[in-house]
Amino acid sequence: MNNNTHTPHRGQLEWSGGAYKYIALGLSVLDIGGGRAAAELVDQKAMAAAEFKHLVIIKFKEGVVVDDIIKGMEKLVSQIPLIKSLEWGQDSEGHEMLTQGFTHAFTLTFSSKEDYGAYEAHPDHLEYAAVFSASIEKCVVLNFPTIPLKQPAPAT
Amino acid sequence: MNNNTHTPHRGQLEWSGGAYKYIALGLSVLDIGGGRAAAELVDQKAMAAAEFKHLVIIKFKEGVVVDDIIKGMEKLVSQIPLIKSLEWGQDSEGHEMLTQGFTHAFTLTFSSKEDYGAYEAHPDHLEYAAVFSASIEKCVVLNFPTIPLKQPAPAT
Repeated sequence: MNNNTHTPHRGQLEWSGGAYKYIALGLSVLDIGGGRAAAELVDQKAMAAAEFKHLVIIKFKEGVVVDDIIKGMEKLVSQIPLIKSLEWGQDSEGHEMLTQGFTHAFTLTFSSKEDYGAYEAHPDHLEYAAVFSASIEKCVVLNFPTIPLKQPAPAT
Repeated sequence: MNNNTHTPHRGQLEWSGGAYKYIALGLSVLDIGGGRAAAELVDQKAMAAAEFKHLVIIKFKEGVVVDDIIKGMEKLVSQIPLIKSLEWGQDSEGHEMLTQGFTHAFTLTFSSKEDYGAYEAHPDHLEYAAVFSASIEKCVVLNFPTIPLKQPAPAT
């Protein structure tokens, strides 16, 4: 690897142009000299493994039948294979100070940001989104590349 | 299995006593007759596989060095093996209407609610929590058993 190529540690944040920039998986961010192609080759496989999450936390409107929401989501998952995995949960502790009134979390995982983009624009998603939105009293949505600090042990 | 035992479908929500009750993994919720012990035996293994998530979304105070927060979390993960996995991310889309000002998400996964309880009470967690709390402008915390609608394909 070219010595002029800046290679931060994996999983580090770095100050860059007025914003923290996440150095996803050792990808070189500066390209001085001919090191870039070599570095990208090295890191291509690692980058391919980085997942993109679409996290939604919700407070549903009163009277919403969550079961119907989940059924719609099951259908969506079967319609759009781009969704790599989907899991959800309902807060079981009920500490209002912590939940701020939110009750449900949904996490959709995609292989890449591009896959998430294609999902967002998918007609089946747009159709479901209209129904889903109408059921929401409040929500927070975060979209981000996933950074694992500890990965689960492989199943035995 | 006793025919009197009510066995809803896995992953279903069911109206029960004024509240939706999640039927985690096919566990019987009504016990009429002697079916319960048999059903519980059948479902024990499935229940053991249900994970418990501790989800935290954050807006940090201005000036907080997120890198330091992450380093502390890495240490915590190494100190407390009860944390089965930990991943985080920083919102990359920046739609204020969706993020409501929140920027970071942290998801800790435990094998069970009991493991999460033990983590919460762990002295190393309590020590870190004091530092972490001081860095937060606002946050939402949800704790829930995870319900997968689609699981990722096994690695090949």
